[in-house]
Amino acid sequence: MSFYDQLKFDANGLIPAIIQEQKTGRVLMMAWMNRASLEITIATGKTHFWSRSRQKFWMKGESSGHTQTVKDLAFDCDGDTLLIQVEQIGAACHEGYKSCFFRSVEGNGNVKTTEPQLETPEQIYGKK
Amino acid sequence: MSFYDQLKFDANGLIPAIIQEQKTGRVLMMAWMNRASLEITIATGKTHFWSRSRQKFWMKGESSGHTQTVKDLAFDCDGDTLLIQVEQIGAACHEGYKSCFFRSVEGNGNVKTTEPQLETPEQIYGKK
Repeated sequence: MSFYDQLKFDANGLIPAIIQEQKTGRVLMMAWMNRASLEITIATGKTHFWSRSRQKFWMKGESSGHTQTVKDLAFDCDGDTLLIQVEQIGAACHEGYKSCFFRSVEGNGNVKTTEPQLETPEQIYGKK
Repeated sequence: MSFYDQLKFDANGLIPAIIQEQKTGRVLMMAWMNRASLEITIATGKTHFWSRSRQKFWMKGESSGHTQTVKDLAFDCDGDTLLIQVEQIGAACHEGYKSCFFRSVEGNGNVKTTEPQLETPEQIYGKK
């Protein structure tokens, strides 16, 4: 039995993938995969996703150079979420932070930024 | 402005919440919250979710005693995913593993179990 048979893609054929930096344990981002993007992720060792907003297949880092090399691929008890350990080049977040989860809510409801911005989006996407 | 205004709940009023054990960095599970379950999570300091399959509000650990105390609540750049750091009592997974992500896919496509089962479901849910 293929492990794909143990996965549950949703009504849109998608499954959420949590991306964690293996060496630090930092959760970098969450994005969606369809079966084709998961297959190419496994075949190439680089993460590929399905963009729900753009309805488009994309390789993480295709514009920014900030690719992710897969180190481990796990799935949960219900088979409806993936957890992928990666080696991350540069910032995972398109806003230039290492992690997309760079903001936390404090007890008083205020929002604080919890990590430095490594690059601005202009620095990332302006360069050709 | 409330941080709720920076969140995007989906068409069903839900947002995915990644739960990470703060002291180890282990990603424990992913579950869904609606606004009410997020509000009560913040108010009580214990994680509460919305079960899509049961269409029911639940506190993590209400049956098993394996509650999660919130240590940090972060949200991502798009405001459509939460990352919650917790202190976990016992196994997070209803199958008795610390993490729901206890299975990884090996290079040959085989699935391996990557952590010990701490308790059986019967041990967790059989006890009253």
